Amino acid sequence: MKTGVLVGIDLGGTNVRVGAVNLQGDVLAWAEAPIEASRGPQVGLARIGALIEQVLGTVGMVMPLAIGMGATGPIDRQRGSIQNPYTLPTWEDVPVVQLLQERFGVPVALENDADAAALGEAWVGAGRDHERVLMVTVGTGIGTAFVYRGEIYRGIEGAHPEAGHIVVDPRGPLCYCGAHGCWESLASGPAIARRAQSLARDTSTLMVELAQGNLEAIDARVVVAAAQAGDVLAQQIIEETAFYLGLGMVNLMIAYLPDVVILGGGVMRAYPVFAPYIHQVIQQHSVVAPLQSVRLVMARLGGQAGVVGAAYAASKLIVEG
Amino acid sequence: MKTGVLVGIDLGGTNVRVGAVNLQGDVLAWAEAPIEASRGPQVGLARIGALIEQVLGTVGMVMPLAIGMGATGPIDRQRGSIQNPYTLPTWEDVPVVQLLQERFGVPVALENDADAAALGEAWVGAGRDHERVLMVTVGTGIGTAFVYRGEIYRGIEGAHPEAGHIVVDPRGPLCYCGAHGCWESLASGPAIARRAQSLARDTSTLMVELAQGNLEAIDARVVVAAAQAGDVLAQQIIEETAFYLGLGMVNLMIAYLPDVVILGGGVMRAYPVFAPYIHQVIQQHSVVAPLQSVRLVMARLGGQAGVVGAAYAASKLIVEG
Repeated sequence: MKTGVLVGIDLGGTNVRVGAVNLQGDVLAWAEAPIEASRGPQVGLARIGALIEQVLGTVGMVMPLAIGMGATGPIDRQRGSIQNPYTLPTWEDVPVVQLLQERFGVPVALENDADAAALGEAWVGAGRDHERVLMVTVGTGIGTAFVYRGEIYRGIEGAHPEAGHIVVDPRGPLCYCGAHGCWESLASGPAIARRAQSLARDTSTLMVELAQGNLEAIDARVVVAAAQAGDVLAQQIIEETAFYLGLGMVNLMIAYLPDVVILGGGVMRAYPVFAPYIHQVIQQHSVVAPLQSVRLVMARLGGQAGVVGAAYAASKLIVEG
Repeated sequence: MKTGVLVGIDLGGTNVRVGAVNLQGDVLAWAEAPIEASRGPQVGLARIGALIEQVLGTVGMVMPLAIGMGATGPIDRQRGSIQNPYTLPTWEDVPVVQLLQERFGVPVALENDADAAALGEAWVGAGRDHERVLMVTVGTGIGTAFVYRGEIYRGIEGAHPEAGHIVVDPRGPLCYCGAHGCWESLASGPAIARRAQSLARDTSTLMVELAQGNLEAIDARVVVAAAQAGDVLAQQIIEETAFYLGLGMVNLMIAYLPDVVILGGGVMRAYPVFAPYIHQVIQQHSVVAPLQSVRLVMARLGGQAGVVGAAYAASKLIVEG
């Protein structure tokens, strides 16, 4: 069996995290720093290079077996480049794969950050040892990734499913994508906030108090806190949101019939509040499909998922021998 | 390369069809007969055995390389048995795989009929040479099968997706599965008929005429014919049905991102009538996913798909050598 370490990189819009990861998925060394994207890719890449050397030094290695990067936002996997002036200002057409390959002389894999996190969870996290792992991340949007037999499932043109945009209610609100009733327009954090802000206008509710009288400050966190404190309106909003969360999950569970659904993202930190309603919806739709056998579990690797998954992607590039 | 022929069997509730199929998927010989299920599995299996010998005789062979069967209704793939007293009365717990193996001394594969048809289309029909083939059959219900890299996609507990029960409108009608707004409750043949019968009650429409005054005789065929003749109400029903057909397809297209969607089933014979509206829905949902690149095509093998696909399943059992 090969020994040595993999390097996993999780490049976010604010920070970059780098880990030395062994072939069993254990993080042996860790380093992170602000990416300061606006100072340009050269500065950023130098910093990433230094962090890589730092974690390798910690584990007493000069070279990794391979390097993997999970990067925020649009990437071009085919060309191995980052195309993300949106959350990494100035990072447009940055050939990270080639640059890291040249500097370290080892194979380099590039994934988007959501896929990297899903790979990490599927490898050694909440999806470990399962053939079909669906990851659903509910936060500002709803992101999904499907890991099938240890690989990110990709479809036509190499795209991966962005199932936040499946339709769960054609009479639902207009989504930024131009369609009506997308899952994420009904069940993401902003959808919860919008629902709450509109209802709190006309009703007495703890939510307004928690938001210190500022309606616009009512967000998903406030709704959850108010619901937990027994606020009836907030509980209604949780129930309605959970209904839509459940419907979207049902649709994806029917399509993929996964062994496990891993829940991540800010909104899912409050999963226990939503869970009874979500399970009710799943139960209602379990007559023709074994949905009740599908386990819903929380993501387990937290902030390390991206680094671990990037290392996993890197491990696939190592020539067996 | 191996030579010789495969035998494919398509066991329906009324007839059984048997083909001798070469390794390129060409049907070299064909035979069919009524199955007369109620006379019992012994009679039926004897008939199937005779048909197998007949097609083998036609191509001048004594033994096939392997045998595959696509059977209507519930099967137990693990045990290789048919469990279908519903559409094959008396056929409960019939170990067809073992019985055919014993009689012919070759490996035997068993699939359900929808999966067999999808495999046939993916092998040498409308999905040929594509990695990801979604088949959607719209008739009395909506059946789906996803063929990925030449295999039926199966999920937890070996189940395959029954995506007729994804939810496309939570305020839709009650489905027999107990949920509201399942795709098939909104877009199958009976859904079209129900919509038409309810609207035709109060409005003057060609549909009533075509059904010779009998409201209950208005079915999907009548609606399509009336729409083609310019009946405004029938056209509205087509448009509404196509909207739901499109929504369900969008959801599955987002989840699987297939290269091609193959359309089959009685309702889809009228696909051109629905197509403009379906394409409109797909276009509205193509902003975040490359759905417009997915080709929608008609099934190509007609009544031979099941036999050819069963032969394909059989081909997977041949030991390479």
